Amino acid sequence: MASTTNQRIFIKDINQFVGQEIFIRGWVFRLRQLSKTSFVVLKDCSGEVQCVADTELLKDQRLKLDDAIEISGRVRLEARSKLGYEVDIVSVKILNPSSNNLPFNTSSNIESVGPETLLDYRPLAVRNEAVGNIFRIQAALLKYFREYLNSQLFTEIITSKIVASGTEGGTNLFEIKYFDRVAYLAQSPQFYKEHGVAGFERVYETGHVYRAEPHASSRHLTEYYSLDFELGFINGPEDVIQIERELLTYIFERINSEHADVLKSYDRPPLPSMLNVPIWEFDECLELLKKEFDRNDLIDDLDPEGERQLCKIAERETGLAAVFVIGYPLESRPFYTAPRGTNGAANSFDLLYNGLEITTGGQRLHRREDLESALLNRGIEPVNFESHLKMFELGMPPHGGLAIGLERLTMQVLGLSNVRQAVLYPRDRYKVTP
Amino acid sequence: MASTTNQRIFIKDINQFVGQEIFIRGWVFRLRQLSKTSFVVLKDCSGEVQCVADTELLKDQRLKLDDAIEISGRVRLEARSKLGYEVDIVSVKILNPSSNNLPFNTSSNIESVGPETLLDYRPLAVRNEAVGNIFRIQAALLKYFREYLNSQLFTEIITSKIVASGTEGGTNLFEIKYFDRVAYLAQSPQFYKEHGVAGFERVYETGHVYRAEPHASSRHLTEYYSLDFELGFINGPEDVIQIERELLTYIFERINSEHADVLKSYDRPPLPSMLNVPIWEFDECLELLKKEFDRNDLIDDLDPEGERQLCKIAERETGLAAVFVIGYPLESRPFYTAPRGTNGAANSFDLLYNGLEITTGGQRLHRREDLESALLNRGIEPVNFESHLKMFELGMPPHGGLAIGLERLTMQVLGLSNVRQAVLYPRDRYKVTP
Repeated sequence: MASTTNQRIFIKDINQFVGQEIFIRGWVFRLRQLSKTSFVVLKDCSGEVQCVADTELLKDQRLKLDDAIEISGRVRLEARSKLGYEVDIVSVKILNPSSNNLPFNTSSNIESVGPETLLDYRPLAVRNEAVGNIFRIQAALLKYFREYLNSQLFTEIITSKIVASGTEGGTNLFEIKYFDRVAYLAQSPQFYKEHGVAGFERVYETGHVYRAEPHASSRHLTEYYSLDFELGFINGPEDVIQIERELLTYIFERINSEHADVLKSYDRPPLPSMLNVPIWEFDECLELLKKEFDRNDLIDDLDPEGERQLCKIAERETGLAAVFVIGYPLESRPFYTAPRGTNGAANSFDLLYNGLEITTGGQRLHRREDLESALLNRGIEPVNFESHLKMFELGMPPHGGLAIGLERLTMQVLGLSNVRQAVLYPRDRYKVTP
Repeated sequence: MASTTNQRIFIKDINQFVGQEIFIRGWVFRLRQLSKTSFVVLKDCSGEVQCVADTELLKDQRLKLDDAIEISGRVRLEARSKLGYEVDIVSVKILNPSSNNLPFNTSSNIESVGPETLLDYRPLAVRNEAVGNIFRIQAALLKYFREYLNSQLFTEIITSKIVASGTEGGTNLFEIKYFDRVAYLAQSPQFYKEHGVAGFERVYETGHVYRAEPHASSRHLTEYYSLDFELGFINGPEDVIQIERELLTYIFERINSEHADVLKSYDRPPLPSMLNVPIWEFDECLELLKKEFDRNDLIDDLDPEGERQLCKIAERETGLAAVFVIGYPLESRPFYTAPRGTNGAANSFDLLYNGLEITTGGQRLHRREDLESALLNRGIEPVNFESHLKMFELGMPPHGGLAIGLERLTMQVLGLSNVRQAVLYPRDRYKVTP
């Protein structure tokens, strides 16, 4: 069957076929029809090429922008074209026409297109390079995240997103009707990745997590993609931070070398080395914010404004708007958080980058008795967590880890203003389609 | 802070420290205490090494198998050991002891341990190499799947698992309480990956999908990990099949070269080339099964026994127990399936491998009017799918794709008897923990 149809080649490969007749397929990206000659720029996933024909030849086809077509034609050297080649059209076949009334095109400047229209016409939006590149960068971030951790002896794990209870006390959980009972969507792979440490020593997982966030802000989603890792036999949270510094530096270097054009199209300078991002104690951060920005209202956490202000201070001090804040008040962190000293601080940190928290991590308690005390301190009966606590009797090493929100990382890397721009199909309180 | 604690090194690196005192951390894998000398085999994520001490030195520690410990000691060349080195213990610190009554150990032969115990003590089970290797192979399958598709111009996408309705008619859906409304867990990324084709031309996604399967068989899960890809501008389903042949061959070659030891430990021969797996028409398969196995009961689908029988025939014919079956009855396939000719067959295929279906794929309808007719033929009003149908007016190319169940692939690669063995935390009708 395949033998009776045309062998299509990718546009990137046409340099191998100069003088020959070939079949290429893709979308009509640009179209210029003069009285005598017509120009069709065809785009596929490998590139774009200008194709030329007598206008007469195309007149019955009524080509439109964004039609899916097949062109048979002859490849010609053309020094004036960007690619170095053009195609002289022999015939055109429309594989599937686009609608007559599209709200925008693949070649449109989409800056004037509203965000809802970009969501309602998602395929067309991502075929447009400005939007498509966001997700190419996202895929690249993900790829380099995995690459780096694979090189550091981490094992990728896949854990269930259907759980019997929450890991952080049970708020903001989505309920699932699970046959005759209720189950929940996992808020985080936290418990599973800690168990993973007891099994593999070093694990990572990339996957969805779910928060029934009642508010729809520019930073919050009900479903987001979490880059998690966790490792055992650490000395303290600084070991986790050091891995994140090296990890992000690796990812950023790879983005710089493989996707410089995308950064440029988003008016972004090359991404920085993160190796020297400083670690500041939470208490000192509050002092700084008080002194420099007159913030007397912050007590047990930072707010978005405080995160931006701290990044400003960091930028002035280090040249880079990034800082690890460590030592948040223990009571504002989940029960499994290890203490930092004996003054009620937590061995828990956030990474603020360009004014936004993109990571939360820390050292966890690794002894069953410490976890029991922590639960009791919060008025929770340890017996409710027995199946989890049992895992701490199997030789659980001292351990820690972190989670990076992939959408937030994408947003900060490209300087987007709303996290929704960094999700193909965003979910919030009001949105479950498209 | 980190500077005051010991710098731990990986066991795989101790060859760089001969004659020096080092710190290593891991679990007690083996333990032999004679009257004068004691031997501790320590295991970390990089390897294992035998450590030696005067029994006197260790007597207060009461070491046990699977304790998490730190050893400081001096590296010594030891030709008789597998690694080539041993460590003379200077001191041992217990980081976290294991319980006195573990049901099995990391070094146990776990063939006699029941499947429920292996789930209830998951961390200990995966620390045991026989179980851990299943998930190392799984991670490798996933890695090579992505590697190959990345090399073929596919873009990785992430799509929502919270959807407003099902893609295949609405059965077997899990309901989510989504604020004031009902939403569902996605059964497949089918619609989104088709939309992805209209955007990126070639896409893949690796992620969870959900089926409210009322039965708990050795092949079914309610939550499984689906390896999906979809591509545009195809001539027919044979193009999809050809990519799967090349993809699986790539994955299998990489497994053979990187994980030969694991295949061996599971008594598996090297994995085969899949390039010549034949394509058999469904009708002919029914004839074959009738003739060779007297199966007169199969009409519009194969059953598990039929899949095993067909693989037997394929093995006899080709030397390999694998076959693509194409041309299932159109009515037994989802509405978006493209027809194969005009006799009621579908351009839809399954890959049967070692007696089990591990892939379903095919060509999809790409014209809005064809999708509308297909819906009407099934008594569904197209208006119910309007938001999906609209995407077919944006220049949707002819396209197709497939989904591979990662757990089933893992199971067949290692010859496991139950798909639950290939899931860290399996979910079925009765199981939402651990």
